[in-house]
Amino acid sequence: MPTLLETTVAQIQPLAPHLAVQAQQHLDHLTKPPGSLGRLEELARRYVAITGMVPPRIARKAVIVFAADHGVTAEGVSAYPQEVTAQMVHNFLRGGAAINALARQAGAEVHVVDVGVAVEFPPLPGLLVRKVRLGTANMTREPAMSRVEAQQCLEIGIEMADQCAHDGISLVATGDMGIGNTTASSALVALFTGTSVEEVTGYGTGIDQTTWQHKVDVIKRAVQLHAPYVDEPLGWLAAVGGLEIGGIAGLILGCARHRLPVLVDGLIATAGALVAAALQPLVKEYMIAAHASVEVGQQVAWRFLGQVPLLDLHLRLGEGTGAVLAMHLVEAALRVYNDMATFDEAGVSEHEPEHGRSQH
Amino acid sequence: MPTLLETTVAQIQPLAPHLAVQAQQHLDHLTKPPGSLGRLEELARRYVAITGMVPPRIARKAVIVFAADHGVTAEGVSAYPQEVTAQMVHNFLRGGAAINALARQAGAEVHVVDVGVAVEFPPLPGLLVRKVRLGTANMTREPAMSRVEAQQCLEIGIEMADQCAHDGISLVATGDMGIGNTTASSALVALFTGTSVEEVTGYGTGIDQTTWQHKVDVIKRAVQLHAPYVDEPLGWLAAVGGLEIGGIAGLILGCARHRLPVLVDGLIATAGALVAAALQPLVKEYMIAAHASVEVGQQVAWRFLGQVPLLDLHLRLGEGTGAVLAMHLVEAALRVYNDMATFDEAGVSEHEPEHGRSQH
Repeated sequence: MPTLLETTVAQIQPLAPHLAVQAQQHLDHLTKPPGSLGRLEELARRYVAITGMVPPRIARKAVIVFAADHGVTAEGVSAYPQEVTAQMVHNFLRGGAAINALARQAGAEVHVVDVGVAVEFPPLPGLLVRKVRLGTANMTREPAMSRVEAQQCLEIGIEMADQCAHDGISLVATGDMGIGNTTASSALVALFTGTSVEEVTGYGTGIDQTTWQHKVDVIKRAVQLHAPYVDEPLGWLAAVGGLEIGGIAGLILGCARHRLPVLVDGLIATAGALVAAALQPLVKEYMIAAHASVEVGQQVAWRFLGQVPLLDLHLRLGEGTGAVLAMHLVEAALRVYNDMATFDEAGVSEHEPEHGRSQH
Repeated sequence: MPTLLETTVAQIQPLAPHLAVQAQQHLDHLTKPPGSLGRLEELARRYVAITGMVPPRIARKAVIVFAADHGVTAEGVSAYPQEVTAQMVHNFLRGGAAINALARQAGAEVHVVDVGVAVEFPPLPGLLVRKVRLGTANMTREPAMSRVEAQQCLEIGIEMADQCAHDGISLVATGDMGIGNTTASSALVALFTGTSVEEVTGYGTGIDQTTWQHKVDVIKRAVQLHAPYVDEPLGWLAAVGGLEIGGIAGLILGCARHRLPVLVDGLIATAGALVAAALQPLVKEYMIAAHASVEVGQQVAWRFLGQVPLLDLHLRLGEGTGAVLAMHLVEAALRVYNDMATFDEAGVSEHEPEHGRSQH
């Protein structure tokens, strides 16, 4: 019997090209020079092509924040202690974190999923407990998790997408929390894109140059330990990944399966996107690169995935903050698509034949 | 007796440096790695420094769209006929243009000011008629307007800022409409920044390569005609500028006078910003570069003014569209400032001393 992961991967369809063409035709009849709204037109076109909705609408929006811990923090790769992961989960649930503030601004719901924080929480209102294990193992000594656990993470993410689709959410953002997770993500970006560890390793939440060199060494040790034994997406996720990264990868796969546009956040999210795209290349059509992170590995990942992020605000926080910020641009794009008058309706002249070639 | 322009220029004050420092101190106590929200932190800091409001709030928001015609369209420099300016004013008033759609998304009011459209409108609900003249003269033959008219445009803009301050608007965006106005704006950018005409001339609303070369020649002719006789901001605005560009310059000066942050839109708006900054360099502290336009002259202008635009969405529409889109980022920045918990409140650990240097 096929697994949920296998079924999901098999059900993802390519986009129907006529939808984007029809959407652009509509955009070209609106009272503006053709193409003059640049990437907003691209977003409107993509939203229509992904969802098939004409007119396109956004009902509910949600960011799914997957939280988990990383055994590799024992190597001293982060500026913050591991306890901060659990402390920040409490902060999310009380609404005091950056993702809460920015989600309120975006009008988006915040769903927090514990896929592997290293402590057992008491029952907490609003926390979805889907704990696969109490944090990953230290990837410099053993695989971060087993292949079975990696698959569990992916399927938790898929189930979150199922829930979003069921709840009528029409725009999803990926979120993450996990001290140490830029280390795991950089390792995955190096492996999936074939880039050197130095080129994909950044300064995380704020380490100094000495700690950065140490972080590079840690990632190299882990990659050298595992690379000879694994050669496909699930194996790499298990060897050097993170539980929340698996959750994000599953969320992206599940969103693609439901034709839900998914805004992909920073380095951790793009590591998840690389896992998802390795399992099913068609997911690339459903994901929207929300912002360019300060983390260099994220930029490498987006070049590999063939997208240019929408925003460049020098963010390096994660949690889904950049993805939630970009929701406004998607909504603005749909406003343009739905609210603007056509040249005919407005009685506005189109291009002058003698000075420009009408594109209509 | 000093003019309104002179009084306004004289009343603009430098920002008090302690406000930005205090704002950053507050941001550094919030539950995120210091500086990790990048340009959102810069925006929050600037908003506090400009307005002096602690906590910073945004009540009403408005985009002021100045509309006017350009005699230089007789030279065949635009892809659209001059009538489109008036047609688009009707479209603005009916709510069908891109600026209306995007202002609705931003929750901003749209105020349309006729500073010089080439036709007399019948009374139209919502249209502010402050017509200085029926469009500029053809700048390749004579000055676009007189110095007295240039000053009138600036003072109309100042009065719009006065009205915004009076109405409790706390975030302003510049908007424009005027067929032919990228030609006038490119001429101004060339003059103010000392850049060659080729380097500041773009494709406007969509001209072809032949028309572009013609547009460059037209601008060069105008610059060569007037450059020997004028050597200061008001003279340049009069010689090769536009009535709406003067309105925008005045709006920026007036906003600075009232400590109102003003989001500056595309090429036409940055031409206005250059005029304003030449009259009073302190206005640079009050303006926020909203987006990088496809128009090359705008990028030259922002380098000259020392700012990096917030958004880069390949827009080339004007009307204030990019400025209004960026309002969301300013509001998101204030959400972060006002809504996030501090480390103490949330019980979250700060930087580990052994791995990172606490900035607190």
